[in-house]
Amino acid sequence: MKVPSLVLKQLFTYGSLENTPEGVAFGLKNRLSDAVVTGVREIAFDERPVPLDELVFTLGEQRFSPAELSAASPIAFPLASTLHVLWKGASLEVGTHTISVSVQSTPFGRLSFSVKDAIREHKEERVAVPYDKEDDYTGDIIRRRQDFVRSFSGVDFEHVTRFSFEPPATKGNIENFFGVAQVPIGIAGPIRINGEHAQGEFLVPLATTEGTLVASYNRGIKVLNLSGGVTCTVSDDRMQRAPVFVFDSAREAREFSSWVNAHTRQIAQAAEATSSVAKLLDIDIFLASRFAYLRFNYSTGDAAGQNMVGRATFAACSWMLDNVDNVRAFYLESNLATDKKHSQINIMRTRGKRVIAEAVVKRDVLVQHMRVEPKSLQYHSQISNVGAFLSGANNNGAHSPNGITAMFIATGQDVANVAESSSGILYTELTPEGDLYMSLTIPSLIVATFGGGTGLPTQRECLAMMGCVGRGKVRKLAEIVAGVALAGEISLGSAISSLDWVSSHEKYGRNR
Amino acid sequence: MKVPSLVLKQLFTYGSLENTPEGVAFGLKNRLSDAVVTGVREIAFDERPVPLDELVFTLGEQRFSPAELSAASPIAFPLASTLHVLWKGASLEVGTHTISVSVQSTPFGRLSFSVKDAIREHKEERVAVPYDKEDDYTGDIIRRRQDFVRSFSGVDFEHVTRFSFEPPATKGNIENFFGVAQVPIGIAGPIRINGEHAQGEFLVPLATTEGTLVASYNRGIKVLNLSGGVTCTVSDDRMQRAPVFVFDSAREAREFSSWVNAHTRQIAQAAEATSSVAKLLDIDIFLASRFAYLRFNYSTGDAAGQNMVGRATFAACSWMLDNVDNVRAFYLESNLATDKKHSQINIMRTRGKRVIAEAVVKRDVLVQHMRVEPKSLQYHSQISNVGAFLSGANNNGAHSPNGITAMFIATGQDVANVAESSSGILYTELTPEGDLYMSLTIPSLIVATFGGGTGLPTQRECLAMMGCVGRGKVRKLAEIVAGVALAGEISLGSAISSLDWVSSHEKYGRNR
Amino acid sequence: MKVPSLVLKQLFTYGSLENTPEGVAFGLKNRLSDAVVTGVREIAFDERPVPLDELVFTLGEQRFSPAELSAASPIAFPLASTLHVLWKGASLEVGTHTISVSVQSTPFGRLSFSVKDAIREHKEERVAVPYDKEDDYTGDIIRRRQDFVRSFSGVDFEHVTRFSFEPPATKGNIENFFGVAQVPIGIAGPIRINGEHAQGEFLVPLATTEGTLVASYNRGIKVLNLSGGVTCTVSDDRMQRAPVFVFDSAREAREFSSWVNAHTRQIAQAAEATSSVAKLLDIDIFLASRFAYLRFNYSTGDAAGQNMVGRATFAACSWMLDNVDNVRAFYLESNLATDKKHSQINIMRTRGKRVIAEAVVKRDVLVQHMRVEPKSLQYHSQISNVGAFLSGANNNGAHSPNGITAMFIATGQDVANVAESSSGILYTELTPEGDLYMSLTIPSLIVATFGGGTGLPTQRECLAMMGCVGRGKVRKLAEIVAGVALAGEISLGSAISSLDWVSSHEKYGRNR
Amino acid sequence: MKVPSLVLKQLFTYGSLENTPEGVAFGLKNRLSDAVVTGVREIAFDERPVPLDELVFTLGEQRFSPAELSAASPIAFPLASTLHVLWKGASLEVGTHTISVSVQSTPFGRLSFSVKDAIREHKEERVAVPYDKEDDYTGDIIRRRQDFVRSFSGVDFEHVTRFSFEPPATKGNIENFFGVAQVPIGIAGPIRINGEHAQGEFLVPLATTEGTLVASYNRGIKVLNLSGGVTCTVSDDRMQRAPVFVFDSAREAREFSSWVNAHTRQIAQAAEATSSVAKLLDIDIFLASRFAYLRFNYSTGDAAGQNMVGRATFAACSWMLDNVDNVRAFYLESNLATDKKHSQINIMRTRGKRVIAEAVVKRDVLVQHMRVEPKSLQYHSQISNVGAFLSGANNNGAHSPNGITAMFIATGQDVANVAESSSGILYTELTPEGDLYMSLTIPSLIVATFGGGTGLPTQRECLAMMGCVGRGKVRKLAEIVAGVALAGEISLGSAISSLDWVSSHEKYGRNR
Repeated sequence: MKVPSLVLKQLFTYGSLENTPEGVAFGLKNRLSDAVVTGVREIAFDERPVPLDELVFTLGEQRFSPAELSAASPIAFPLASTLHVLWKGASLEVGTHTISVSVQSTPFGRLSFSVKDAIREHKEERVAVPYDKEDDYTGDIIRRRQDFVRSFSGVDFEHVTRFSFEPPATKGNIENFFGVAQVPIGIAGPIRINGEHAQGEFLVPLATTEGTLVASYNRGIKVLNLSGGVTCTVSDDRMQRAPVFVFDSAREAREFSSWVNAHTRQIAQAAEATSSVAKLLDIDIFLASRFAYLRFNYSTGDAAGQNMVGRATFAACSWMLDNVDNVRAFYLESNLATDKKHSQINIMRTRGKRVIAEAVVKRDVLVQHMRVEPKSLQYHSQISNVGAFLSGANNNGAHSPNGITAMFIATGQDVANVAESSSGILYTELTPEGDLYMSLTIPSLIVATFGGGTGLPTQRECLAMMGCVGRGKVRKLAEIVAGVALAGEISLGSAISSLDWVSSHEKYGRNR
Repeated sequence: MKVPSLVLKQLFTYGSLENTPEGVAFGLKNRLSDAVVTGVREIAFDERPVPLDELVFTLGEQRFSPAELSAASPIAFPLASTLHVLWKGASLEVGTHTISVSVQSTPFGRLSFSVKDAIREHKEERVAVPYDKEDDYTGDIIRRRQDFVRSFSGVDFEHVTRFSFEPPATKGNIENFFGVAQVPIGIAGPIRINGEHAQGEFLVPLATTEGTLVASYNRGIKVLNLSGGVTCTVSDDRMQRAPVFVFDSAREAREFSSWVNAHTRQIAQAAEATSSVAKLLDIDIFLASRFAYLRFNYSTGDAAGQNMVGRATFAACSWMLDNVDNVRAFYLESNLATDKKHSQINIMRTRGKRVIAEAVVKRDVLVQHMRVEPKSLQYHSQISNVGAFLSGANNNGAHSPNGITAMFIATGQDVANVAESSSGILYTELTPEGDLYMSLTIPSLIVATFGGGTGLPTQRECLAMMGCVGRGKVRKLAEIVAGVALAGEISLGSAISSLDWVSSHEKYGRNR
Repeated sequence: MKVPSLVLKQLFTYGSLENTPEGVAFGLKNRLSDAVVTGVREIAFDERPVPLDELVFTLGEQRFSPAELSAASPIAFPLASTLHVLWKGASLEVGTHTISVSVQSTPFGRLSFSVKDAIREHKEERVAVPYDKEDDYTGDIIRRRQDFVRSFSGVDFEHVTRFSFEPPATKGNIENFFGVAQVPIGIAGPIRINGEHAQGEFLVPLATTEGTLVASYNRGIKVLNLSGGVTCTVSDDRMQRAPVFVFDSAREAREFSSWVNAHTRQIAQAAEATSSVAKLLDIDIFLASRFAYLRFNYSTGDAAGQNMVGRATFAACSWMLDNVDNVRAFYLESNLATDKKHSQINIMRTRGKRVIAEAVVKRDVLVQHMRVEPKSLQYHSQISNVGAFLSGANNNGAHSPNGITAMFIATGQDVANVAESSSGILYTELTPEGDLYMSLTIPSLIVATFGGGTGLPTQRECLAMMGCVGRGKVRKLAEIVAGVALAGEISLGSAISSLDWVSSHEKYGRNR
Repeated sequence: MKVPSLVLKQLFTYGSLENTPEGVAFGLKNRLSDAVVTGVREIAFDERPVPLDELVFTLGEQRFSPAELSAASPIAFPLASTLHVLWKGASLEVGTHTISVSVQSTPFGRLSFSVKDAIREHKEERVAVPYDKEDDYTGDIIRRRQDFVRSFSGVDFEHVTRFSFEPPATKGNIENFFGVAQVPIGIAGPIRINGEHAQGEFLVPLATTEGTLVASYNRGIKVLNLSGGVTCTVSDDRMQRAPVFVFDSAREAREFSSWVNAHTRQIAQAAEATSSVAKLLDIDIFLASRFAYLRFNYSTGDAAGQNMVGRATFAACSWMLDNVDNVRAFYLESNLATDKKHSQINIMRTRGKRVIAEAVVKRDVLVQHMRVEPKSLQYHSQISNVGAFLSGANNNGAHSPNGITAMFIATGQDVANVAESSSGILYTELTPEGDLYMSLTIPSLIVATFGGGTGLPTQRECLAMMGCVGRGKVRKLAEIVAGVALAGEISLGSAISSLDWVSSHEKYGRNR
């Protein structure tokens, strides 16, 4: 297998070049795939080869001289391990140097590349937030950190530093833990959900600081309940990672895409070996220039799954790189997963859950409770469609991200996914009876009931409030979120159509 | 002034029709503009006029018979007031009825319209969250609410119900207050910002539940600091509300747009009369079909300003409706403000702050700290551009919404504005010296240092940590947010380019 | 099989209601599927049933009384046939009438529906362009048409009415044939194409009226030729039709999508039975609200194939409607094929040909012939990317539709497909040698070498000029078009980067 | 005034370096602004200065030695002139050389830059299409060209080479004129237009090769006429060029935008000095990274105006570059004019004409002539809206580009502008009477009645057919185009809704 130099450089990265008391040191990390080094041809600095006996290698526990290596006496260099190189007794001048490395390996044959790095002047001491490498979640280090922040900023913290749980609970969710944001939660509902997974009435915790929001959603919920509840359906469920492979030509990229289609079974095996949950559903391929963009679609159980699919895709790509020899460069992400972004591809092909909430709202209910005719609301909806087309908006409805965000904060979702989850397709239709069929399609709602922040203390309690803790609950949660979002559309849509909107903000939403 | 009936119905809304012990009752709310009623021509139910002496009107404190009204003895009917109508002694059958109203008024002349409403059967008792109309923020009502939620859901709350402040602090920010979400905050920085408003080093509170996020931003901040800091510029600043006016024809809509352009001074006066802060900058007009969409652009000081511009625009529209007589319908919002949505119009014409963060990252710093060559990062950026074009993404960078969301939660921003704030334009360029110029343009960053949730206890402290409390600070905050967001782009961009990405998640981001 | 009434009305349409000398007449066209009528239950006008013996039916050659029909004596009512109904001797008043029809049929059972239609006053005589129902392409009718146009418009036509071929050649391509547009053709090239289908040098006919266009493309072609030619690759090839199915709920729509996935073989059979060429590749399904949008992807040989895939999809949908009984309404197109439109889905999933043209342009050649450094052109390309992102453009290059349109007109393509074909992804990269790698990806280039206008006299000659007449040539043509388009990108990109642009228009492009 | 070197290189371009019999020669073209050269400091090849007395300069008619130049004896070097430099008797080796130039000038002071160019081996003789530098439109050169094409391609041309006019008529419209595409024209109409500029009935020439198109438009026209005609309104009218200015920082770019706003009067003067027709309406400014994108909006009379606004904007930019000294680079186009592209900015801010066609189509007419209920058509329109949202289409209607393209080809428009003109916003609404209000908004219709191809023989006759020749007619033409386009929407919309679509293609549109 021949590895092009661009890929080589990308895949064998090196740690910082340093003058140490022992000599000149740097590291080489194997990011390509398992390999065996069978000999060292040359290590050179600034094009001057170093005699092999002046070099010492360290790999894990082993320390050895490059001269010891041979086909008969090789050394395993596994994926993700780092080879530390030491040039004994040497010292380089401050400034830029070229490091050249040439080794003999299996299965790659000769691997040669050179990089530039610099020996830097003694570093200035930077002010840094206190950190404890051993355990950064003890009371002691947290207090030291709080003291530091107090002294740096001159602010006396009375509230941020008060929380109701033991700090280690946040391990895996935060680094440099300092305190908490206390975001007020109001209760909306109960809302009647007629889902496949959520059935019955649910109280909904909304964490927000925007006055009127809870009241507004409650008005919509009342209307939904009086109309028999909201029917919610999860229509699709998939999470993505989208690597890109660079070739010498568009034709090679096209051949690669055929190769991928012919090897999906093996690719899926490689991907799924990394997780007991992730299943590879399919791979969308997009060709442009000499690049092959692959969008891996996975099911991820009750986790949102972004990390899970990252690992799985990385493993799949490693297998692919092992089996294809004309890749010029490779990146694990290419802006086609569109993590933390709105995109048309999310609207089309789903990211997270595709959920649809539907209801037939009775005319009398609308008129009596929202003071608006179905006809007026539907007319507004048609005009808003044109508005959304003119503005290029990712949502032709009123404000579904309001309720979604409030539920995300309350329940420990990755709130930055509001970017994706903000898309929405509102559709309204007058029934022959003069009632109003409304549906809200959320094509890329990213929720979890497992992993991420869902296990944190208040977050878990809010999930519990809706019976959505842990495994097997994520579609239930998705249904509730969609139902609540539709309630908000009814409420704000009615308010706009009946002009109540400004005045309700006047009444509730002022805090200055 | 002639008011078309569609507008009439929209502007004079009515309260629920009821059989009361006193008789049949309903209300009429004036949403159009100040008026004087000089006579009542007819009130009819189901097309049968009610003798005027069977009717009693109540307006504020006044109670009077419609027969008493005349041009000589009029009654003021101000904007936003409600006229309660009582048909003494009467009672309507359960079912739908038509109410017709015809009054004589100044300045509208005769106002006539009819609506349908229904007398409903006795309402079922609905389960409802306890609420205290007088004061909903007392310890007592909150406890009752908590008890209700406990009993409804069967969950024992230990954490959500614990907070460090007095509940009335949340008045104006939440309804049905129940407790708080405790979102862990980690500290990033200090980051060196070279802004016009933010100058120096700032510690940054990041409220998130996503492991690795704080660590990742910190890596980017280190690189920025070693490169001399990040230069941040607020290039524009505007907040919108976008009403739509419906006409009989496209030609009338076009004439209206000319009329608007000829009356911007008066429109601005009407708008600005509602606030000491809001200033109308200009009005973008978009014509389609027979609709005139107006996008009002305001400066809103240190508030995000969505409510402020809603009120101002409503006042402006009221003035316009008073002075134009061919409007067929009017809605205060039309999906061109694109509140809580991504849109192309936000990218082009700014919503909130347009902020640009720039840095020249030294090659040596990148290589030593991020193990990536500027060339590789820049190459990835070019390929990602194509990826964003293919996917129709609203951001060609890596993940700016991550840092933005974490700062939003910490500092009491309206987090649903992540929808707008998620847009970004990342631009990278190799300098002749081989260093990397990077800039991140955030075209619609919505931030506030005043109003909304910014005054809540933990939120205010986090603003204080950055010296961003209150008036005159909002652009400083915008600069810091942009600088932090760029740090995240460097960090994740480098990780992708050097393949470190999956493995850093492996190390920090696991909590299951 | 139960057919919902909405579908019934849609599928059984009727011809105009008329008072004829024989009586009241109307027609019923079967658009659903082959059926057999086994009895007539009732035909009524304005809810008054007509005695069956007053009715006469005509179906093709057969004329019979409805009373003659029975299960034992049925009548075949094939798809697309029309049943003419006559109410002998009767006459309806001018105005609107309700027609009700109820018949017994196999396989549908009882089919009942009613429609409204009107008897109109005697029609005014409308001025109409002369038309010959028997043969509209004779010299005689064409002359009469020309005379009519002359007399109507007062214009003496000297040029439009002159053409070099016999009018019947245009049958199937035009109705109301009147004359020709003579669009000047200039010759560009020869251009060296290194394709899989096009190999060698090709002269290119460009039909345009825009001065400088031929000269500009020629400059780009020279640069490409001096760089060894342009490498072209057809990466994908598919044509679409996108019907939509309406259900009672989102859940039914989702179940339908599963059903479709489980029956692709049968659906493909039904579709492919309509054509010896069309092959169904796959079906993309998009769910929103209670609608299932299906995008059928076909290969269509050397034809562009829009009509072919319309027929095939209609047949497939007929089969589906026969086998699914909960469809509420159905439309053959839903704006997801995006025929004659730009769309993101075309960019992603290809429409027509996805072609990529690539070249490495030598620095010396660029500098000597275009007076621009690769670096400057590449810099412009990066800045234009940001411009395209800001403007929401469907092409980040300079002007590929110019060359595409000129080739489309010359070679008899459906020129309105410039809407789709205008999308483009330009990508540029400096090579380590300082040369410029350029590629242009055209994701939705719609071309044909067979069918449509490709067989017309001048159009066929222009295809012949490039060796692209008829079957087996369409990818060759696609490659040449892409190569020419890239030449235009080099030329205009260089001109902009070297500022030559305005002055070259000054020199060539003036004709007033 | 200080000129940054990047701008210098961009603005002073040079002609090819050559060994001539007289010596080494190259040219310098002034693209910056009028200048006066007051002395030559140095001309060097490969860093070796040439003695000034070995150099000869030629500027227009003047030939002189650089040594003769001084502040007292300067030479004018006007914008767009070329200074030819000759190094007498010298000869450079084949290969790459560096040319350095340093002159003293007013008003720029010292101008110094160096470029690389190459002396190439004797050029291979390339096959080239015959061309006559003196007059390329004579019968002789055209015949020679035709012979060449015949011999190169082996095709005997019988039709392409036949046309009804004298070739010089095409001067300014085509280069390398060879023959014509004869595109069949069918006549649609007469259509009744109720415009401000077009009033009455118009016959419409449609140049197309797509069978059924003329018939389909005619059906829609009949419906429109029976409904009283189509009301058309030109709501806006503007043409763009969008240069970009590069600065050292975002802050400088922002200051520049303020400077532009403060100098619009002078900028407009500079722009309008280039044309008696173009008027600068306003300048939209878009800031991203350190770039200032300016979108100049002009009115351009009866011409489409792309070239006119290019010249005007170039002149305006020259004035700006003369008056601002921190521009680092400048390009006349940046992908924000979006010439020959669809873009969201066109939809919002208009490109060419914004035209709206409206009609109220009577239910009876629709039912009798199109066999479809208004309700069904409107329902399809709502479902298509969702389809367009899902697909990211630039048009939510059916196929307006079909009619637009056919009229463009017939009347000599720049057909590549179908890219822009393909956008459309279809809006439908049921009236209380059950009729159908329909409107089609074309936000970026680019048409001309003057300039470009509008004066060519058949094209002018087609304009004459509609009374649209020459000055003062362009809005009339725009109105007719919009009316025809709406007719097509009715026709195809009805066909889809009544399922007639496939079968009408079966009947007319086959030609193989």
